[in-house]
Amino acid sequence: MKTIILLNCDMGESFGAWKMGNDALAMPLIDQANLACGFHAGDPLTMQRSVALAVRHGASIGAHPAYPDLVGFGRRHLDCSPDEVRAQVLYQLGALDAFCHAAGTRVDYVKPHGALYNDLVRDDALLGAVLEACAAFRPGLPLMVLALADNAREVRLAEAAGVPLLFEAFADRAYLSDGRLAPRRLSGAVHQDPERILAQALAIARGEPFPDLDGKPLRLRADSLCVHGDNAESLAVLRRLRAALDAL
Amino acid sequence: MKTIILLNCDMGESFGAWKMGNDALAMPLIDQANLACGFHAGDPLTMQRSVALAVRHGASIGAHPAYPDLVGFGRRHLDCSPDEVRAQVLYQLGALDAFCHAAGTRVDYVKPHGALYNDLVRDDALLGAVLEACAAFRPGLPLMVLALADNAREVRLAEAAGVPLLFEAFADRAYLSDGRLAPRRLSGAVHQDPERILAQALAIARGEPFPDLDGKPLRLRADSLCVHGDNAESLAVLRRLRAALDAL
Amino acid sequence: MKTIILLNCDMGESFGAWKMGNDALAMPLIDQANLACGFHAGDPLTMQRSVALAVRHGASIGAHPAYPDLVGFGRRHLDCSPDEVRAQVLYQLGALDAFCHAAGTRVDYVKPHGALYNDLVRDDALLGAVLEACAAFRPGLPLMVLALADNAREVRLAEAAGVPLLFEAFADRAYLSDGRLAPRRLSGAVHQDPERILAQALAIARGEPFPDLDGKPLRLRADSLCVHGDNAESLAVLRRLRAALDAL
Amino acid sequence: MKTIILLNCDMGESFGAWKMGNDALAMPLIDQANLACGFHAGDPLTMQRSVALAVRHGASIGAHPAYPDLVGFGRRHLDCSPDEVRAQVLYQLGALDAFCHAAGTRVDYVKPHGALYNDLVRDDALLGAVLEACAAFRPGLPLMVLALADNAREVRLAEAAGVPLLFEAFADRAYLSDGRLAPRRLSGAVHQDPERILAQALAIARGEPFPDLDGKPLRLRADSLCVHGDNAESLAVLRRLRAALDAL
Repeated sequence: MKTIILLNCDMGESFGAWKMGNDALAMPLIDQANLACGFHAGDPLTMQRSVALAVRHGASIGAHPAYPDLVGFGRRHLDCSPDEVRAQVLYQLGALDAFCHAAGTRVDYVKPHGALYNDLVRDDALLGAVLEACAAFRPGLPLMVLALADNAREVRLAEAAGVPLLFEAFADRAYLSDGRLAPRRLSGAVHQDPERILAQALAIARGEPFPDLDGKPLRLRADSLCVHGDNAESLAVLRRLRAALDAL
Repeated sequence: MKTIILLNCDMGESFGAWKMGNDALAMPLIDQANLACGFHAGDPLTMQRSVALAVRHGASIGAHPAYPDLVGFGRRHLDCSPDEVRAQVLYQLGALDAFCHAAGTRVDYVKPHGALYNDLVRDDALLGAVLEACAAFRPGLPLMVLALADNAREVRLAEAAGVPLLFEAFADRAYLSDGRLAPRRLSGAVHQDPERILAQALAIARGEPFPDLDGKPLRLRADSLCVHGDNAESLAVLRRLRAALDAL
Repeated sequence: MKTIILLNCDMGESFGAWKMGNDALAMPLIDQANLACGFHAGDPLTMQRSVALAVRHGASIGAHPAYPDLVGFGRRHLDCSPDEVRAQVLYQLGALDAFCHAAGTRVDYVKPHGALYNDLVRDDALLGAVLEACAAFRPGLPLMVLALADNAREVRLAEAAGVPLLFEAFADRAYLSDGRLAPRRLSGAVHQDPERILAQALAIARGEPFPDLDGKPLRLRADSLCVHGDNAESLAVLRRLRAALDAL
Repeated sequence: MKTIILLNCDMGESFGAWKMGNDALAMPLIDQANLACGFHAGDPLTMQRSVALAVRHGASIGAHPAYPDLVGFGRRHLDCSPDEVRAQVLYQLGALDAFCHAAGTRVDYVKPHGALYNDLVRDDALLGAVLEACAAFRPGLPLMVLALADNAREVRLAEAAGVPLLFEAFADRAYLSDGRLAPRRLSGAVHQDPERILAQALAIARGEPFPDLDGKPLRLRADSLCVHGDNAESLAVLRRLRAALDAL
């Protein structure tokens, strides 16, 4: 039986003279590269090189659009209207797709970044705006959203917009009972133990329950796991996870 | 006999709360709208609205990419490498095309803005970079360049890149004898007299000679005239020019 | 009896090629110029010219710092930490003061702009951060805040920081009963009638009650009225208001 | 005999989430910290922290203003007018000085960064603009410029502006015979050998001649040596250089 879940990773997060991440080492290990599009990271040359790296390693390319907040790396909520968000996402999608097109490929999916990603969980109008941008850009272009215990809301809005969804889970984050991520300020919100991370990843990959923040069983239906490859520790876990998934 | 030259105009040059130009009045009078793509002007919402306005009036849409210099409005030379320029143009092209695509149309041509436009006249590597961006974005996508007395250099480089050229002339600017624009610091570099502007426009449209800065006859082969519509005077000239061309 | 209230106006809001406001006409009519500092408007040359204009007309200069959001003109809430806000305000204050110093004057007060101004009404930590920036920049530098029916909270925090307060009121905005501004989405939130604006201004100047949004009497203690001078209508009202105050 | 030359280092070059340099390790080893001011690097929080670090280690603080080009890290020539440059430098100087003032210190000198620094060698109007900014900001504030075989031009312009000069030399760069830096594209332009770097540093510190790019003796009069501390190699050289200078 083949691997039943994909691995996605935020990449292309350098900006000009500033380097971030270890894309050259992580790219061969992942399936889906979420590439920054210039609003929180990723100048044009970085985008071009990131697309080339993804193509070289056969990774699927996702657009990783964000609020326009370079100094805050897109991590700070910015109070944009749905119209603004729709236009921001279209802009970034188009910019990244130009590099993909020039490299003989295309944007395969959209995964919003940082504060925009988080805002989609609670704001129907913003989620609708991002869905509209996906549908307007290309029929069938999927949006990646957070896998929850119950994604009925996301499914309903996405179906109305005619946009397929990809569900993403996290192996290194603790979950609340409803499938939302435990806020980072809570003790135990981020798993440090590689064994714990691997166990949670394999449980999600197999569709089996795993313990939430309170130790109660939680089951998530996910298409992809978000992984990190920006330092030696995360790369080591990523290598083991890749091997474990390939052996499933 | 129908109009034998098109009218193009720089548009979509607002940015956020700042308004520039009179696009709603000028758009019905022109054939080609050069739309800013975010690097010197044109935030995402402005781009979306400008595309919608162009579509409503049947104007062809050109990408108007620039050096990344918002505070300088793209008018200052920035010493970018050809690789940087190629990536900057692709980025802006893709961003604008996303709005075009969402509105059921597409970018029809590329006209670099400001200092980048001027730099193409003297820098083969930069011109090559912009041509590469055009070719990589879509086979057959034309680049608009300055019509000179002799465009052999531009034709040679464009043919090597497989990119069609559109030649642009100016009705309100005085020319040097080789067809380059007289620098603005020279007396008489910019025509103020509407009759003079109209006469030069019609001469160019008919392929007839007109007086250069020194009064000597100059003949330019041009596909399009660059016009302005940002104030009452330029709009008045534009209306007369439109009528005169329609009557040709 | 002399004028008992000052007039302040947001100015220096051009940016590069984009012009905003009618500072040359409004400056002679006002007492305090709130000058943009580069984060929502106001490039360095605009700041230099705005300072020179204020000096020429004897207007007091206030720093008008904002969240870093050029495309949103500082009007959108950005979720910054108090540490970030303190540093942002210090940065902008220092930048503006350099132009003041070069022109032989100095920043006389600080009035936060847009979303940052609004956030101070409800967020003690942010208000504390801005107060710290004022105190760190220069002992005795006053902060301008919204005059409310009860400013006990602002007074308490400002006294703890050792920062004097200036209270600002609005003649063209309707108020809720507690002295907060009626949200713009409510009908009647912005006064259009010049007589109404003048009446409210004079009532505030005299310390007399005026009708709130519901028609009930509201009394505000204010040091300064925020006025506008960006179009012919607002300039006409401003001229009448100036004359009326000078005649008090 | 005490150390007769100072060591200066470009610092505070992180930006938001992007880290650059090894300021915590290098700061104790240097005398003068050139701190980025937000135009090529250095967001407000980074500036505040860099000032605090410099104060902790007793380093003198220099403003390191640049052209507004974040994505190009201020390394690309931008065709600004002298008026623009004067205002850009004042803006950045004031912003950094606000953090210095809040930390109980002040900007001690100005060293332009990157392309702006290089442009000063050949453009009298730009050098004049930077000198004016220094003089306007604070009488006696020194400007750091490149030590040449003959600095008569710089001395003449600085004296006219009433600005003291600090002369800077490089231990790890090869020089042309006139004291300009050998362009990086030339073979041998950058010294890699630590012994060579130390020898050149000590020769400059002692006012003794050292070999230029062609091996001919060159003597420079310098107040400060520009050093780097951004990786293990440069830190190792810096430690040896610090020790050698302290032992002079």
